[in-house]
Amino acid sequence: MAKKQQLGITVKKSEDMAEWYNQIIIKAQLADYSDIKGCMVIRPNGYAIWENITSEFNKAIKKHGVRNAYFPLFIPESFFKKEAEHAEGFSPEVAWVENKEEDQERLAIRPTSETIMYNSYSKWIRSWRDLPLRINQWCNIVRWEVSDVKLFLRSREFLWQEGHCVYATEEECKKETLLFLNEYKKFIEGYLAIPLIDGYKTKKEKFAGAVFTTTIETMMPDGKALQCGTSHHLGDGFAKAFGIEYIDKDEKKKHPFQTSWGISTRLIGATVMLHSDDKGLVLPPKIAPVKAIIIPILFDDTKDAVLDYAKKISQMLDIEHEINLRDDMSAGFKFADAELKGIPLRIEVGPRDLEKQTVVVVRRDTLEKQEIEISDLLDRTHGLLNDMQNDLFEKAKNNIKSSIVETDNYDDFKKHIIDRKMVLVDFCGEPDCEDQIKADTVGATSRVIPFDTKTEGICIKCNKNAKHKVYFAKNY
Amino acid sequence: MAKKQQLGITVKKSEDMAEWYNQIIIKAQLADYSDIKGCMVIRPNGYAIWENITSEFNKAIKKHGVRNAYFPLFIPESFFKKEAEHAEGFSPEVAWVENKEEDQERLAIRPTSETIMYNSYSKWIRSWRDLPLRINQWCNIVRWEVSDVKLFLRSREFLWQEGHCVYATEEECKKETLLFLNEYKKFIEGYLAIPLIDGYKTKKEKFAGAVFTTTIETMMPDGKALQCGTSHHLGDGFAKAFGIEYIDKDEKKKHPFQTSWGISTRLIGATVMLHSDDKGLVLPPKIAPVKAIIIPILFDDTKDAVLDYAKKISQMLDIEHEINLRDDMSAGFKFADAELKGIPLRIEVGPRDLEKQTVVVVRRDTLEKQEIEISDLLDRTHGLLNDMQNDLFEKAKNNIKSSIVETDNYDDFKKHIIDRKMVLVDFCGEPDCEDQIKADTVGATSRVIPFDTKTEGICIKCNKNAKHKVYFAKNY
Repeated sequence: MAKKQQLGITVKKSEDMAEWYNQIIIKAQLADYSDIKGCMVIRPNGYAIWENITSEFNKAIKKHGVRNAYFPLFIPESFFKKEAEHAEGFSPEVAWVENKEEDQERLAIRPTSETIMYNSYSKWIRSWRDLPLRINQWCNIVRWEVSDVKLFLRSREFLWQEGHCVYATEEECKKETLLFLNEYKKFIEGYLAIPLIDGYKTKKEKFAGAVFTTTIETMMPDGKALQCGTSHHLGDGFAKAFGIEYIDKDEKKKHPFQTSWGISTRLIGATVMLHSDDKGLVLPPKIAPVKAIIIPILFDDTKDAVLDYAKKISQMLDIEHEINLRDDMSAGFKFADAELKGIPLRIEVGPRDLEKQTVVVVRRDTLEKQEIEISDLLDRTHGLLNDMQNDLFEKAKNNIKSSIVETDNYDDFKKHIIDRKMVLVDFCGEPDCEDQIKADTVGATSRVIPFDTKTEGICIKCNKNAKHKVYFAKNY
Repeated sequence: MAKKQQLGITVKKSEDMAEWYNQIIIKAQLADYSDIKGCMVIRPNGYAIWENITSEFNKAIKKHGVRNAYFPLFIPESFFKKEAEHAEGFSPEVAWVENKEEDQERLAIRPTSETIMYNSYSKWIRSWRDLPLRINQWCNIVRWEVSDVKLFLRSREFLWQEGHCVYATEEECKKETLLFLNEYKKFIEGYLAIPLIDGYKTKKEKFAGAVFTTTIETMMPDGKALQCGTSHHLGDGFAKAFGIEYIDKDEKKKHPFQTSWGISTRLIGATVMLHSDDKGLVLPPKIAPVKAIIIPILFDDTKDAVLDYAKKISQMLDIEHEINLRDDMSAGFKFADAELKGIPLRIEVGPRDLEKQTVVVVRRDTLEKQEIEISDLLDRTHGLLNDMQNDLFEKAKNNIKSSIVETDNYDDFKKHIIDRKMVLVDFCGEPDCEDQIKADTVGATSRVIPFDTKTEGICIKCNKNAKHKVYFAKNY
């Protein structure tokens, strides 16, 4: 029993969420700290989730004609300086390479790839026939300002994808800024079961160099908002800065319009924190690398027959699964281990099941047991995985709903922020006003201007006419 | 016609292979130079080949229980110093990060990940139950010594996979060193149609820190050898240096044994250079992202009917294919473009084909035309792709055979090296002797000690007793 306790999570989610989260990540072997300040190691159990994210999201974007490519890790300092706002926004975050050659320019390690990619685009784009150009890159990214790593959620290096598309018209460009945001939303809600609020970023929070930024935000169970992805309409500012031009059908030279959009390994952290419980990891079945684990329950006199039966069940299953045949662990220990590691379905196979030609299936989220006849095995396991996927999403939606409030009173607003709520208010839209709100609340930031909301009210802080409704919250 | 000429390759493979290769890579849009010294951009047509390599090779290694993970890009200087030979071998190649924090150690940008990975392994491995541990990483790698980039073949940054496995016994470790070398051989010969010589590296050419290195080598048509992959038996040297220990079944603490093995994006360069011709890219069908292109041949009076017929053919095909419906290009221009880009099968669809319910299929390598009835379309296209795959491999094997010679005379040896042959000789195995051979031949290096060859002869250079037969050649 001592060993089992050590294996499990030793704090409750409701009591110390930071420590609980950390234990889940470490003990389910999703990631580990490294000896390099600010950096993490993504272990195979975690990387398998990332592989599922990349393969599913690749399908979603390839449908729209997006093609993957790879650009250099290094970016010359002069490239950054070409777009002034972008340079200012990223300069504190950049790591630089030690200069070995005196005649060579200083090189940054990419914190994002707009500048290096658009330098190539300026050579590749000549005619309206070359547009739209839709390129995506899966790569590692370095942002040096992070020093206190929070596994998956905040680290100096992380993995992401960055889509960078170019269009002849501003209209098409804006349309696809929203198209790819919507692909994020469909994927993240549908696969990761994370409910999202979509909308615009305020002027202060938009991407450095963008005309506007759209975002998808969610609320973590510790009351901190988390940005799950962004899609930027860059206008023609970068095209002008990098000399991207095309000859249009009317034979005139024009600057095209651009988007960029990204999601990262932090999505793994969000998924884990949102769904997991005091027994360990809970993963939405659609993104879980292993959907089920068969655990035979062995007694001396029926051991061989039960093992054969378990192997037969394994051959029948048409989902990714494991079978735990180790004979140096009790069934109880195997159950706890499968719960800790977040395998959606546990399939118990014992002598009584063999006799009745049934199995006992346990859902990881509810821990409900079901006896299933093996003639129904495929239908019922698929059904249970679907139910679990839907139930996790509904549960998360309800939780997030309960942490959202709306107010027009600044004192109430500040109290709600202390209570870790996501607070919807009328807001003037001005960066200065936003800075003051942040100072007054020790850190609340504007998260999202939800689509399709309008206001005729006054700003919660400055009482000037409000420009839009905005969610404020503390955030990751 | 002027446009067509410009689009195509303007030099012959037999006349100026370096320029020919470069034009193929650039004009088939596989890769491009970047403005960063020594770095390249992998364009979508090239990256799609890499995606096929990663997905096929992942299947091959996952069968053997290898799991993917991701370790930090940065490696503390002290980690390198732990294994002396490794440190010395890599020190000239390493790029360093500018140190922003005085109290922090100097960080390298990974030139290979043994040290950072084994630092984690020392924390993860405790018991014989944790072994074997088989982890692989797909990532970018930086080796700073390269300044004159040769697209795909040599650049400061490239993409690769590095497998790093740990075993309880030296026997198992050696066995799997060869197992993964053999997986490379099967994959590279079977998919990339590159014939390989497999064997050991000499003492001088082995990996820095390895007990021995196994390698797969091929010969490029310009008479330079190219190393396609290596698999290293690291013994227990790294385990001792990094404090990796496990408690064995006998309850004693022991150091385990380790392997590392890698292939990289240079395989794309090798594939392109080996198979392509004066009309452009030729790709083995199994690795080609697009297997066929349908080109309708349009005349005013039959245009709509032929377009419908072409779309019908597209719906019938069960292979990845494109259909070129652009009406601002002639069929001839489309043919040349498809040849330049290396699409294995061209499917021509004209009014006569419609009438006869046939198509004309042209193989990219031989340019042979076949009339195929649409009732046979699926069988015949699969058959042609298989034939092309096999023929490319056989042709390459014959070419390589003709560039291999064997000699026991040092003057003949030097002549063969000047003639760009791969020369099999008896060799003493000593690094000093190898240095002298390199000096005498202005750059020939030992490539591989082929498996299962023995010698009782004397060293081609020093006349001492030979240790083994070795291939020498100029190389990439």
